[in-house]
Amino acid sequence: MTAPCAEILSQGDEVVTGQIADTNAAWLSERLTGLGFAVKRHTTVGDDLENLADAFREIAERADLCICTGGLGPTVDDLTAEAVSLASARPLQEDPDALRQIRIWFAGRAEPMPEVNRKQALLPEGAQRLDNLRGTAPGFALNHAGCRICCLPGVPHEMKFMFDNAVEPDLCARFPTQPEQLITLRVLGVGESTLQQRLNSIALPQEIKLGFRTVPPENHVKLTFPAHYPAAKRDAVTEEIRRMLGPSVFGIDTPENSDGTLIECVDRLMRQADASLATLETLSRGHLAQLCGALPWWLSGLALADSERIQARLGPYFKADSTDPLANAGAVAEYLRQQEGSTHALVCIDSRHTPDILYLAVAAGADTITERHPLEGNPRYRHALAAAKALDLLRRAL
Amino acid sequence: MTAPCAEILSQGDEVVTGQIADTNAAWLSERLTGLGFAVKRHTTVGDDLENLADAFREIAERADLCICTGGLGPTVDDLTAEAVSLASARPLQEDPDALRQIRIWFAGRAEPMPEVNRKQALLPEGAQRLDNLRGTAPGFALNHAGCRICCLPGVPHEMKFMFDNAVEPDLCARFPTQPEQLITLRVLGVGESTLQQRLNSIALPQEIKLGFRTVPPENHVKLTFPAHYPAAKRDAVTEEIRRMLGPSVFGIDTPENSDGTLIECVDRLMRQADASLATLETLSRGHLAQLCGALPWWLSGLALADSERIQARLGPYFKADSTDPLANAGAVAEYLRQQEGSTHALVCIDSRHTPDILYLAVAAGADTITERHPLEGNPRYRHALAAAKALDLLRRAL
Repeated sequence: MTAPCAEILSQGDEVVTGQIADTNAAWLSERLTGLGFAVKRHTTVGDDLENLADAFREIAERADLCICTGGLGPTVDDLTAEAVSLASARPLQEDPDALRQIRIWFAGRAEPMPEVNRKQALLPEGAQRLDNLRGTAPGFALNHAGCRICCLPGVPHEMKFMFDNAVEPDLCARFPTQPEQLITLRVLGVGESTLQQRLNSIALPQEIKLGFRTVPPENHVKLTFPAHYPAAKRDAVTEEIRRMLGPSVFGIDTPENSDGTLIECVDRLMRQADASLATLETLSRGHLAQLCGALPWWLSGLALADSERIQARLGPYFKADSTDPLANAGAVAEYLRQQEGSTHALVCIDSRHTPDILYLAVAAGADTITERHPLEGNPRYRHALAAAKALDLLRRAL
Repeated sequence: MTAPCAEILSQGDEVVTGQIADTNAAWLSERLTGLGFAVKRHTTVGDDLENLADAFREIAERADLCICTGGLGPTVDDLTAEAVSLASARPLQEDPDALRQIRIWFAGRAEPMPEVNRKQALLPEGAQRLDNLRGTAPGFALNHAGCRICCLPGVPHEMKFMFDNAVEPDLCARFPTQPEQLITLRVLGVGESTLQQRLNSIALPQEIKLGFRTVPPENHVKLTFPAHYPAAKRDAVTEEIRRMLGPSVFGIDTPENSDGTLIECVDRLMRQADASLATLETLSRGHLAQLCGALPWWLSGLALADSERIQARLGPYFKADSTDPLANAGAVAEYLRQQEGSTHALVCIDSRHTPDILYLAVAAGADTITERHPLEGNPRYRHALAAAKALDLLRRAL
């Protein structure tokens, strides 16, 4: 079966002039690809009626599905309904239910409905209204020239909510797609070329696609299985790859379950363990405090410009010129844990003699684990990588 | 004069399937708009030769300028040169200088050039090569059907470097554009509707456009003046607006000079004052340490989950149940400055009795300034806003 062809159309002067980056298109593409559509093209046009109508006409000729975002607001710049009306030769008609909902939305805020908002109830004749429970702009959907056209608001949280609740069920009923199965192995601190080398010896069946992606500081290994690939065989292949990549894999996302980012993994494990954390950092320059700071198990974070400043504060427990910086980091972690009364303490520091080496320690009750890692790259990348390496050590200790 | 029409074309399966968001398009749009082009459309297509060639043909018909990014790599998925060759009926030819540069790039890394990279030296006949000093993929430019087509690599830092150094001078010579003059006033902690109200009483001349944009936690007021609007009159209007907005304006970007973001403003002032900083925070949850941590004047940051923990550390200087939390914050800032030996200390904390109030203090020599602000919004926004409010107080103290 050939996958149905989808295109995405974004509308707005603020997008086409670069004032805002279009994150809606990437989100929709990923969702549509996951549903089994072949997304062939994204188009962005400004607030120009003729250009927008042209874009709808062209896409309707090429694609089976067009998802459009933006241009449903109340002002004169909001032209989506008019452009679809023009492109599909369906006059605009006031939808009484849409108008009622817009009035209710304003009534809920104890405000009168401004007259301009009446425009938002105008939909192309025969279009199906898509209710917007999070804003004033209803969306709509219709068939034109063999293409299903769905128009959604540009505000991301309204758009996503409507896609999930109204558009996706409709698409699944209309398009009998067979989505591929995507598995993502999330890895920390192993570059793409090293990952490729480690996987060189595996002979993957032809129908499984292998891909790589970098989302600093994470690297992802992506396995795409055909729609009907048996789950047991799929999981066996995944497990073999995980074993070849070793402990650098910190999470696996499958169609059924997502482990999420590194801080999401750590958050889950910390909550499960009913643990609490204090941190001390130099090389990560506040990144560790900021990453953990919003989470309920975090108690305190001390960030210092260099290890000399640790000496000044924790002199009895830390020797800045120690010849054993790892033991040093471990001793400080143990002291920090006791001082802060936390179940865990995480230390992420440098040593005066080896500026490009990161020393990590996690203290957890009787056990203290230490590790050293060389750091490369530009300063901002190093700060983020040092914090990620520290979180990864904590994850393995949990 | 009508502005010349520009379009942006992005190539790549990873973009069209939503695996990465296309930040190149927004960057290019903003730059082209600033140069005086009317950017009419963005298009993204996947790694498909026919689709890509079609996109080039369509854009060449509609636009005076097409900037394309991506698809210049060495693999079979990299199809830009071939697609332009197809669309413009110019055969591909090996460019000896391009091949030499690719060899030199690998030689500089003491690696032999893989045979696949030879493909990157193939350019459409008659195209002008655009050297890539930061990677292996050269770009190229040519005229087709009245449209200037410029193809650049997709790696953002390579693309931006080539645009600045090779494309922009070429465009300025070819297109006698008249860019509008954009002034941005950067404001902290004043919402869009309040900004609009404050500016209600001003009668701007018709030819000046007023706009608003939110980049949390900053709000921007944008004034667009015609190309030939006199600088003295422009600056007088800007100054009047700045005065109406009051001290919440922390920076102004003009075509001649950019103040930049809040942390960039603070960084500049700290360096000018030869100052150094220690921070203590609760409500901003590590954001302050992370924002300042990468900068050379930062000495230390202590982040704590709540004000009870300040009491435990700085008991003699801090009273968690004080009825005067502002004085409390001031006392702690003074103590912190002395303890850390910094010229400035910045404190950003809560008080047990008023959880939604932020207490700020900056200690600088003999002077200590304190301020209180109510905080609203979801937790993550509050953390970022609290840190920004603290930095803004430091800015005003400098």
